[in-house]
Amino acid sequence: MSLQISKNEIKRLRSLHRKKGRRESGLFIVEGEKNVEELCVSSLEVQTIYVTDEWKGGLAGNRKPLVISAKDMVAISALHSSSPILAVAAVPVNVPWQPERVAGSKLLVLDDLKDPGNVGTILRTADWFGLEHVLLSETCVDEFNPKVVQSTMGSLFRLKVYRGDIGKYLASLKEHNPTFRVVAADMQGDELSTLRAPTCGALVIGSESHGVSESVLQHCESKVTIPRMGGAESLNAGIAAGILMYVWSF
Amino acid sequence: MSLQISKNEIKRLRSLHRKKGRRESGLFIVEGEKNVEELCVSSLEVQTIYVTDEWKGGLAGNRKPLVISAKDMVAISALHSSSPILAVAAVPVNVPWQPERVAGSKLLVLDDLKDPGNVGTILRTADWFGLEHVLLSETCVDEFNPKVVQSTMGSLFRLKVYRGDIGKYLASLKEHNPTFRVVAADMQGDELSTLRAPTCGALVIGSESHGVSESVLQHCESKVTIPRMGGAESLNAGIAAGILMYVWSF
Repeated sequence: MSLQISKNEIKRLRSLHRKKGRRESGLFIVEGEKNVEELCVSSLEVQTIYVTDEWKGGLAGNRKPLVISAKDMVAISALHSSSPILAVAAVPVNVPWQPERVAGSKLLVLDDLKDPGNVGTILRTADWFGLEHVLLSETCVDEFNPKVVQSTMGSLFRLKVYRGDIGKYLASLKEHNPTFRVVAADMQGDELSTLRAPTCGALVIGSESHGVSESVLQHCESKVTIPRMGGAESLNAGIAAGILMYVWSF
Repeated sequence: MSLQISKNEIKRLRSLHRKKGRRESGLFIVEGEKNVEELCVSSLEVQTIYVTDEWKGGLAGNRKPLVISAKDMVAISALHSSSPILAVAAVPVNVPWQPERVAGSKLLVLDDLKDPGNVGTILRTADWFGLEHVLLSETCVDEFNPKVVQSTMGSLFRLKVYRGDIGKYLASLKEHNPTFRVVAADMQGDELSTLRAPTCGALVIGSESHGVSESVLQHCESKVTIPRMGGAESLNAGIAAGILMYVWSF
């Protein structure tokens, strides 16, 4: 037996595909079994979980999902191929920026990255390498965009994600810790093999087309490049970030 | 002045979004400025190039594109957000498998990778690291899928891409070169830092969910793992491939 959701309800849920709708309601969408599973064990507040009768799982905390038709699921999903489970959760309140804490740790910085899939995959990779803190420039895609959430595969709920003026944030870290060093990915940098894994510091990744912006580069002590041996003109930002995070971690 | 394309023509072009349509016609679609640019300087046969009046480029060989409406471009595009340029090209004849040549070189092998974006990005990364030869299992997504082509950013036209039974191909390489070694990405492998850059050999990447298949692992002399330090359960296949290719190259 599936519940029919009203046209208005579908409209409301679809509004969460867009930043404006998420800002106005304070809610966002989480799709896919792995993602919803991780959401349910996180500290985030879950509002409603929708499933189709294709879904054969169990949910942490014995939560009861609403069963809806496959057609309605397609209507509310933000993905190309909808999954049998979709949750609506409250956007958490901003993580407070505690430079005294972050300055003794490692920080990944994303400057002006627009592609949701790339940003989601980078957050997932950061979580794999045990990074806790990620700073996004104001111009980066919203981390609660459904496609970002989807690509993080649950890692979004484990990371501390900040958003703001990168230069200002980096300056505050250096004030708290004079040994805090910032390295940027740059086409005109030192060979990547020169990069050592620090105990604290920041790694800055820029966009594929523009790289790290000039105003941010002023705060970077060094620049590194992934050496090129073939014909491709550039690397995908997610791939470049993955390679850099690996070298920066070991 | 833009040309109106007929409904039948739109239908024919849209059939190239699917493997069946490409097989029957021997044609495929290339979208985006960078991709079409690289197509035009490749040895591939270009049939037609469509542009909208938004397009302000020039094409190698002084080719004359057909100007169509933005609406028709959306109709024929296989992408979410269509670009102002789309080309139709002939699928090249299969690259002949020359084990005597490949056996002295490096080969990237993709086992059962289905995601078009991942496979395209991996081909682009392989090209960045100067790999020339890539072998796909029969079950991998078609490399002429429009989303694969899109994500390669032109690298597809520079690589030699083979498709077939991985075990058989690897065996033929070892026959020609007894020092040819095969390493597989595997969750239960040696630490990645033990991997050295060889002058010849193969690197095998499996799918995110199933890894490298048992039948292929039989042909691998060693297995490597990207060490995990955090909470994510797995890495995106494209990211894992990128990190492995970097370490395998230097």
